[in-house]
Amino acid sequence: MNEAGCELCASGELNAAPTVYADDKLFVIIVDDASYPGFCRVIWRDHVREMSDLAQEDRLLLNETVFHVEQAVRETMAPTKVNVASLGNVVPHLHWHIIPRYADDAHFPAPVWATAVRKTDESVLEARRAQLPHLAEAIARRLQQS
Amino acid sequence: MNEAGCELCASGELNAAPTVYADDKLFVIIVDDASYPGFCRVIWRDHVREMSDLAQEDRLLLNETVFHVEQAVRETMAPTKVNVASLGNVVPHLHWHIIPRYADDAHFPAPVWATAVRKTDESVLEARRAQLPHLAEAIARRLQQS
Repeated sequence: MNEAGCELCASGELNAAPTVYADDKLFVIIVDDASYPGFCRVIWRDHVREMSDLAQEDRLLLNETVFHVEQAVRETMAPTKVNVASLGNVVPHLHWHIIPRYADDAHFPAPVWATAVRKTDESVLEARRAQLPHLAEAIARRLQQS
Repeated sequence: MNEAGCELCASGELNAAPTVYADDKLFVIIVDDASYPGFCRVIWRDHVREMSDLAQEDRLLLNETVFHVEQAVRETMAPTKVNVASLGNVVPHLHWHIIPRYADDAHFPAPVWATAVRKTDESVLEARRAQLPHLAEAIARRLQQS
């Protein structure tokens, strides 16, 4: 169900995004963020505002999906810490950010939404980007088995 | 289990914080944040780093607790949006932030970790603070029943 005025519903991304996993309830993308290779997003297809607007079964499914993506991020990207957040102030259409964090990333230890404090070496970012096919494979494998 | 070097384990907060709910696994506090009345935190007692380090039963329990706090925040604080996040870059000891957001809050629509863009009217903040006893009661009621 799309909702008029929702940027995400209007964007076409809900149907057209290149995804690493998709089913009839949700899909998972690897965000194209130059500073944060491995940044993933889990997006609920229906226009729902908050986790507590979901039916219990759907809420558990979405939590499990975020959990599997977190695990795939850990096993392939080896981050210092994983950040997991559902904000949606700009786009109040339920989605979760799963962000691998490293001591040398642009904002560490602050959240990625704070002011950047450094630039990560391009060679380090390149090495992390080289892991993205493995990350995509790990997410797909985990979610197809779950 | 405490861990040497963890700010949260060392702080004594794990045992001494005034809580709105506590059991042997976790506790819930209302954060004393002048700009964000109703900001809640769910803190896992044992020193665990990531959600995916928890046993499945504990992970489900923590997710359910965050869900109940989100519901209590919605029903008592009537926010425009709820933000839910587990970051822990500074203190890698598992905890969740549940933050009621309003169009007139200090950062909206940016995350609360971005640069503040306004000051909320003190009378508005006072009215929100007046809801905190109801929020505490709603959290305790929901979690004691769950």
